[in-house]
Amino acid sequence: MRDPILLTPGPLSTSLRTKSAMLTDWGSWDQSFNQLTASVCRDLLEIVNGGASHVCVPLQGSGTFAVEAAIGTLLPRDGKLLVLANGAYGKRMAQAVEIMGRQVVLSHSADDVAPDAAELARILQSDPAITHVGVIHCETSVGILNPLRELAAVVAEAGRALIVDAMSSFGALPIDLRTLQAEAVIASANKCLEGVPGMGFVLVQRERLLASRGNSHSLSMDLLAQYEYMQKTGQWRFTPPTHVVAALRAALDQYIEQGGQPARLARYRNNCERLLAGMQRSGFRSLLPPELQAPIIATFHAPRHPGYDFSRFYEAVRDKGFVLYPGKLTQIETFRVGCIGAIDHAEIDQAVAAIAQAIDELGWSTEWQAETGAFA
Amino acid sequence: MRDPILLTPGPLSTSLRTKSAMLTDWGSWDQSFNQLTASVCRDLLEIVNGGASHVCVPLQGSGTFAVEAAIGTLLPRDGKLLVLANGAYGKRMAQAVEIMGRQVVLSHSADDVAPDAAELARILQSDPAITHVGVIHCETSVGILNPLRELAAVVAEAGRALIVDAMSSFGALPIDLRTLQAEAVIASANKCLEGVPGMGFVLVQRERLLASRGNSHSLSMDLLAQYEYMQKTGQWRFTPPTHVVAALRAALDQYIEQGGQPARLARYRNNCERLLAGMQRSGFRSLLPPELQAPIIATFHAPRHPGYDFSRFYEAVRDKGFVLYPGKLTQIETFRVGCIGAIDHAEIDQAVAAIAQAIDELGWSTEWQAETGAFA
Repeated sequence: MRDPILLTPGPLSTSLRTKSAMLTDWGSWDQSFNQLTASVCRDLLEIVNGGASHVCVPLQGSGTFAVEAAIGTLLPRDGKLLVLANGAYGKRMAQAVEIMGRQVVLSHSADDVAPDAAELARILQSDPAITHVGVIHCETSVGILNPLRELAAVVAEAGRALIVDAMSSFGALPIDLRTLQAEAVIASANKCLEGVPGMGFVLVQRERLLASRGNSHSLSMDLLAQYEYMQKTGQWRFTPPTHVVAALRAALDQYIEQGGQPARLARYRNNCERLLAGMQRSGFRSLLPPELQAPIIATFHAPRHPGYDFSRFYEAVRDKGFVLYPGKLTQIETFRVGCIGAIDHAEIDQAVAAIAQAIDELGWSTEWQAETGAFA
Repeated sequence: MRDPILLTPGPLSTSLRTKSAMLTDWGSWDQSFNQLTASVCRDLLEIVNGGASHVCVPLQGSGTFAVEAAIGTLLPRDGKLLVLANGAYGKRMAQAVEIMGRQVVLSHSADDVAPDAAELARILQSDPAITHVGVIHCETSVGILNPLRELAAVVAEAGRALIVDAMSSFGALPIDLRTLQAEAVIASANKCLEGVPGMGFVLVQRERLLASRGNSHSLSMDLLAQYEYMQKTGQWRFTPPTHVVAALRAALDQYIEQGGQPARLARYRNNCERLLAGMQRSGFRSLLPPELQAPIIATFHAPRHPGYDFSRFYEAVRDKGFVLYPGKLTQIETFRVGCIGAIDHAEIDQAVAAIAQAIDELGWSTEWQAETGAFA
């Protein structure tokens, strides 16, 4: 049987070409590997037009490591971060700052509500101690697209610095650092770039990075130290995940060949629309209204059948070759289906069919459903 | 041309079987991946007989991330770490603690001198504030084997806790947690286990880990949180480097099939002896006396020829298919050659021949050398 297709927000299904790039061992001190790293950094900056203002600092570990590193490096010890949180990733960002022992304040909105720019302006005006604002571009907790440009404009107008967690949007949703004022944009290899997990990266304003000396709470996560070492030697400061970097290089080659960000967005948007339409035909209802739905991952209400159990559902769909993702809401029973990775309309159509078939085989599909909508 | 063979202390040359394990994408939420992680952890504990007393906590990132995480988690905020440093890794461990803002004291010895157990006993007696002692098992700065068992006995006798950086020894040099009293043993996938880089792991006394709540300076590097999340869900707390974990599973399968730690040590010891003998025949002199030489990496004095330049030497040997490692000493010109990785006597013999040939072609081999030893 073929490997299951991952309909998850990363790790996700990558192309064989990307994975095959891991069949070589690279010396971490070797010039050829330094060139690989440099070319990856150059291309990551290029995707968001950041070359003139920003530098790229890669970091070992998961995306969360890169978020923590960015904040630990950029937020002064006496700084204060406001996090606009409408999901798990905003809360996690705030938690990282708390553990560092620095000041943080959360502005919550519900998981299916975007942060409000006017409210942000009010908070910034009322609390001059806030130096930085943290925004999650696409919150995969439910898959909501937050209004990055509007929020960034308010932050810039108020003279504060913006830190963007673009983990699950980078490479697909447009970000233009020539017009968007962001001190840092953080993402990882294994989302819309379709690399494998094991490294993140931070695109950071060069001057702000150079002014960050002494901020970091951590040896390993000091992005300034990583940057300065790389500038001096071309090498990562500590052992890099060489195979993961090589896979990202291969993934970027394919990204560029396929048409870059516009093409990636078009494919994911098509995947997402097909998924939403197909699931609707099967009687499922998605959580978000279309205007808030990012083409990254969709949240669906679980079947209302009294026998519904996510684990059984998951296993039944997995047996048909597709890996779903659990919901992350505490109040409502949901599940998630990703639209990203090396997949296209064919896989999405197959997944929709597999889900419907699984529901049918589990006996959760009834006459009643067909007539009234069982998944409301 | 074949890929060059990495004579480096990690990343190193891995088998094709190990790399091929990265040709599958794993869902990080999937039961099959949870089982993979659990089996890796079980085997890592087994290698050092730690199952009864210790638990295994894997961590994303390089080995240094795991060292920082172990200390940040285990050293209380008001604790004090004594680091026995005879090379770069001891100094790095101390630097991590300094940045965390906790108390640390260094006991230096020269790079080619092992820490002295009697001196350690004196320091511990004179400074009751010291709660923990950090030891580097094998310092790859020059390749020295430190007397772990002697030092551990002194630490235990003094009632302090021991933290062992076993990065470059784990899996090859014997460690037995039934008799060695160590609060934590830290290593990574890409050294003697012959996995690929991207994750480390800490084998930690279960009770001490459970007593560490609130110590960690970092969200991402809190080993207690990682452990508790894994216990509850079977999953890594943040996105795991799935392909790297799968490669480590494959590497462990081969490790066990080949005869485990004794077989691994025997192969490396043979590699090292052959390397030392071969290099001596070519006129090179190794830095360490045999009794201090770990069978991991050897340091050689550079040729004394006035035209010697490490970069040119490195390139010439690389052209012949072998990647050397630079020296790490500031006072003496040296270079290093690793004995570890998926290599055997054939590759060592070829490497020795390639080095001699390169020296010859570079014109650094003279009559004078043959008579008096040019590399003293």
